[in-house]
This record gives sequence, C-alpha cells and structure tokens, in this order.
Amino acid sequence: MHKLRKPYLLFLADAQLKSDAKTAFGLRDWCTADVMGEWRLPESTVTLDLPRLSPTDAARQGAGSIVIGVAAVGGVLPPQWLAALEEALDAGMDVVSGQHTRLTTFPSLVAAAQRSGAKLIDVRHSDQTFPAGTGRKRSGKRVLTVGTDCALGKKYTALALTQALQARGASATFRATGQTGVMIAGEGVAIDAVIADFIAGAAEQLSPDNAPDHWDVIEGQGALFHPAYAGVTLGLVHGSQPDALVLCHDPSRDTIEGYPDCPIPDLADAIRRYVEAASLTNRAVRCVGLSINSSCLSDAAWSDYAATLRATLKLPVVDPMRGGVDALADALLAA
Amino acid sequence: MHKLRKPYLLFLADAQLKSDAKTAFGLRDWCTADVMGEWRLPESTVTLDLPRLSPTDAARQGAGSIVIGVAAVGGVLPPQWLAALEEALDAGMDVVSGQHTRLTTFPSLVAAAQRSGAKLIDVRHSDQTFPAGTGRKRSGKRVLTVGTDCALGKKYTALALTQALQARGASATFRATGQTGVMIAGEGVAIDAVIADFIAGAAEQLSPDNAPDHWDVIEGQGALFHPAYAGVTLGLVHGSQPDALVLCHDPSRDTIEGYPDCPIPDLADAIRRYVEAASLTNRAVRCVGLSINSSCLSDAAWSDYAATLRATLKLPVVDPMRGGVDALADALLAA
Repeated sequence: MHKLRKPYLLFLADAQLKSDAKTAFGLRDWCTADVMGEWRLPESTVTLDLPRLSPTDAARQGAGSIVIGVAAVGGVLPPQWLAALEEALDAGMDVVSGQHTRLTTFPSLVAAAQRSGAKLIDVRHSDQTFPAGTGRKRSGKRVLTVGTDCALGKKYTALALTQALQARGASATFRATGQTGVMIAGEGVAIDAVIADFIAGAAEQLSPDNAPDHWDVIEGQGALFHPAYAGVTLGLVHGSQPDALVLCHDPSRDTIEGYPDCPIPDLADAIRRYVEAASLTNRAVRCVGLSINSSCLSDAAWSDYAATLRATLKLPVVDPMRGGVDALADALLAA
Repeated sequence: MHKLRKPYLLFLADAQLKSDAKTAFGLRDWCTADVMGEWRLPESTVTLDLPRLSPTDAARQGAGSIVIGVAAVGGVLPPQWLAALEEALDAGMDVVSGQHTRLTTFPSLVAAAQRSGAKLIDVRHSDQTFPAGTGRKRSGKRVLTVGTDCALGKKYTALALTQALQARGASATFRATGQTGVMIAGEGVAIDAVIADFIAGAAEQLSPDNAPDHWDVIEGQGALFHPAYAGVTLGLVHGSQPDALVLCHDPSRDTIEGYPDCPIPDLADAIRRYVEAASLTNRAVRCVGLSINSSCLSDAAWSDYAATLRATLKLPVVDPMRGGVDALADALLAA
C-alpha cells in the first residue's frame, strides 16, 4: 500500500499542452487543500494558476513530495527534469511518479535520494507483497464503481460520490486503486500492478474493517468485459466485497475501446453480470445506479437518454459533469 | 515464459514421505523420457525407482537441470540441500525450483551459478514482462481445463487429454500455467505470478498461432467462483480464447476449499458462467465434457453419479483415474 507525504508541489516540467498535464490538473481539482504550488521549467507554457515555488522553497514551507504531474514521452525523464527532481530530493522531499519507467532506473535520482534519505515512489508499481484473499466479511459499508469499459469515469464518479456523501454528513473515504487516485488520496494501491494471485487480497487490505455506518468509496478498474483487464476487475470486485455498485458507461461506445471485436453488453446484462460476480463475497450486493459520461450527447439527447434508462432499469442515472451525483448518494444513504 | 533444460535429475533431498515428493513423482510419471535419474541425501527413505546419480555423474551424462522435487519446510533450503545444488551448478546444470522462496536469496547458490554460468530458475515466479492482451484471434485450436475449485485435477486432466489426443494421431501440446506443469512441459508460465495487468497477455503468449488442426491443451488455474483467485482464472480464460472447455469437479466439495462461506454453484450453472466468460474472446466456445475427481466415491456410486450427470448435462463425463479421458478426446476431435 502506498503512503505519500503531503502537501505536494506539482511538477509541470516542460509541458506545452494542458492535456499533457492531466495528472497535475486532477490533483489540483481533487485534493486542492493538499497542493502547495506548482513548479515548471522555463519551456513550459502550462499553468495551474497556483503559486510558483521552486523545490527548495516548497520544502522550506513544508512540502512533503514533488509529484510529476505530466506524462514523459516514452517514459524517459529528460536531464532538465532530473535536475529539478534532484533539487527536491536534496531539500528532503520525496519524488512521486506515475510513469511506467521506475524512478530507480535513473542513477542521479537514486544518488540524491540516498544523500537526503528521501524516497522515490512509483505509484504505478507495487513492490509490496500481499496475502491471498480471505473472503472474510468486514465491518463498514462499501461502494465500488464498475464500468462497461476503461477510462469512462470510474475514478471521477468515486471522487464525486465521496464528496457528496461527506456533504450529507456521512463518513466516507475514497479508496484509490490507480496511480492518479493514489496521488489524490495520498494512499492506496495500483491494483493492476500487484501479482495476479493477490489481486483480491490487496483489495481486501485497501478497505479494512471500519465503523458500521462508514462508506468506503472504491475506485473501480477495467471492465468485466475487457479482453485484457477483466482479471483485475474481477479480483477487485471480489476483494472489495461491495454492498453497492455504481455502473459507469459512455453511450458513445458500442465496443471496448481499442477492441472493435468486443461488443459492450447492454446495460441490464452488464449489471446482472457484475452483481452475479460480486455476490460471491457479498450476497446482499446490489446496483444502486448508473454514472454516465454523456459528453457525446446534446443536453436534449442526454435528458432523453437518462429518462429512458431510468424507466428501463428503475435506477438513478446521473452524469457527474451534468448535475452531479446527488441521486447516487441519496440512494446509498436511503438503503 | 520459462524454458527449462532437459533431461532432469530429480532431487529428493531428505524426504521421508512420498507425499513430500509429489513434484518428483509427477515429473517421473508425466515426463518419463526427460528424467535421467534421482539423487537423494542419506537421510531420505523415498525412492522413485530411478537410477541413482550424483549431480556430477548426471551432468557428465548430459543432464541439463537438477529439479527440486520436494517441498522445503517454510521455504528455507537446509545447508545439506544447498551442497548438492552447488555441486550441480558447478557441474554446469541449472537448478529448477518451485518453492516460494527464490533461489537467488541463497548466496552460496548465486555464487556457484556465477562460477559456472548455470542458471537459477524459480518456476513459481515470473520476472518477464508481458504485453497486455490483444484479444486477437489466433490460428489453431485450444482446449482449457477449468474447475469448480482449486486442486481437483485440472493439470492431470490436461496432461491426460494431451496424451489421448496424441494417441489418436492428433497434433497436441500441453501448455503449462503452474509450477509443476512448467517443470513437466519444460516451458510455460506460472500465470498466477505475473503482474495483474498482464494475465490475459501472458496467456496469449502461452498458446501462440499454430496449425489449423493443432490442439493446445491448456492447464487451468483457480476457479471463477474462488474469492482469492478468480481474477487469475478469468484472465487465463480470456487470453486462452479456448474453443473448448472441460469442467473439472470433485463431488465431495460443496464449498470452495478453505472458504466454507463460498458454495460451489451447481454444475450446469458453473458451465454457463464459464462459457459466458470465455465467449468474450471466442464466441464459438463450448463445454465438451466433465472431468470428475471421484476418489470420494465407491465404484457403484461413481457409476450412478456419472450416469446422472451425463443424462442431465448431455455431455461426456469421465474420471481420468477411472477409465481415462477417451470420451473427452473423442468429443474434441468429433467437433
């Protein structure tokens, strides 16, 4: 399980496009109180509209980590990036990266970390060993976001739902299972990076026993209908032992992205299959609603689409970007 | 993907009980032609009834690897075991281990391997990186053994089915996904040891494109209904893209072994769910029969049980230990 030291200095490096700095924007928006400032190289034209702080200045003001908030092309960190990260390490800050290439493959970073005792943390990887899943019923309540595909709003929905529950006075914790989620939460596990035998075991550790009325809102991964990643999804479903599922979907997709031969099942069937899978470790599981990424639809089309789904499935249907997730939070708390 | 050097010298160490040497007996029985002899310490009272050869003598006669054929208590290899393994390494043989503890954690083995250039091979672990699954349809035919639980005959059934197909003149290859299977085949991957994201991708590599009438007989792992290991199972099912499934079952079990709260579904439902899962990457998949571990039943009870299942499920039902798997081989070739 990763544990990160906050607050963060967000490193934009030489980013020229906002879309290259998705991680940095996500952190600014979802853990605003934990972000102290931004640092970029002279070449960068992107800003988060946060205070500009050098690594040394940020460390002086108490920053715990510098987070690489941009994607490195081909996973290689250019020399001018390394200089900024070394400065942060020398000032005592940890370096947090979600890149594929491990920080420990850069000798100058390893040397700087050894000098100061600071840590190199690769949130995309997992070096921890986990026990096998036990299936033991844990106390507290859990909701898991699941999807008809990857990359259609499972993390966003879980974050929004956590906030909505907290706004209603409920006790709720976002549980991160992917690298950006781990950075936002400051802890969690990149579930797709653990050894296959221990997917469910790692998911069990992620949402331990809790107070009876506490909600863990668990970030889903992959999809049960995904030819590459369904194993991760199923292990996460089993280890999470969710009381409730929220199904996330993008109506512009008929097939799994990048897999044109893999049709996405109709939503009633998708719900049936997720509930069937989840009932192995929690027989009381039910789907409490749908979270739709409706960016492909006009306002009128979205209204029609949502109304039709509500009538067909008899469940709340929201788009977190179009009116929020209140109906899902209400459904969870009403149960 | 592991690749082992045959022929083998089987190391029985100080085993006192046949049951401690299951791996050695399995290798003797399933890859007889690849086993040159056995070597044991003076304390051992177990024999495979094979020629006794010291590591040095075996190497002189062309042995490629010494295989640890017994389980080490707590994963620690005692000093007298290490001496024998060092002798083998010094004679140029690789050491093959299926223990949890990696061979590289024993400095004297690492030193001996460096001296001779021989390899330390931990078949329970996987240090290879695999690509993500593609879902691309491959040429050739594939049958996968699946189960209602772990440890009830999936490997045994796959091995027996490979032999039965070959005996009928069919071209067939056993594809190993667990440590003992890898030792028997001399190659394969411990699928539960790969990084979660790449389960399906590793399974795709395991059974590459082949001749149109060639059968890969793939060793299944875990169970879709297992609270710890279902993720491994699902990824293996998807990456294998089987044309045919054989369901393995032990009628003495009502619940998953070690998980008394997890009932095993009835067999028709188990078949439905495996076929549903597998149809994601091969819409033509079908279950061709059942392989029953009937050791809990008398001859009469087995006859009744098998007859009832055949009538109910309209499928061949065999026990590899009670009459073999001919009916499954016939069903595969008839299709």
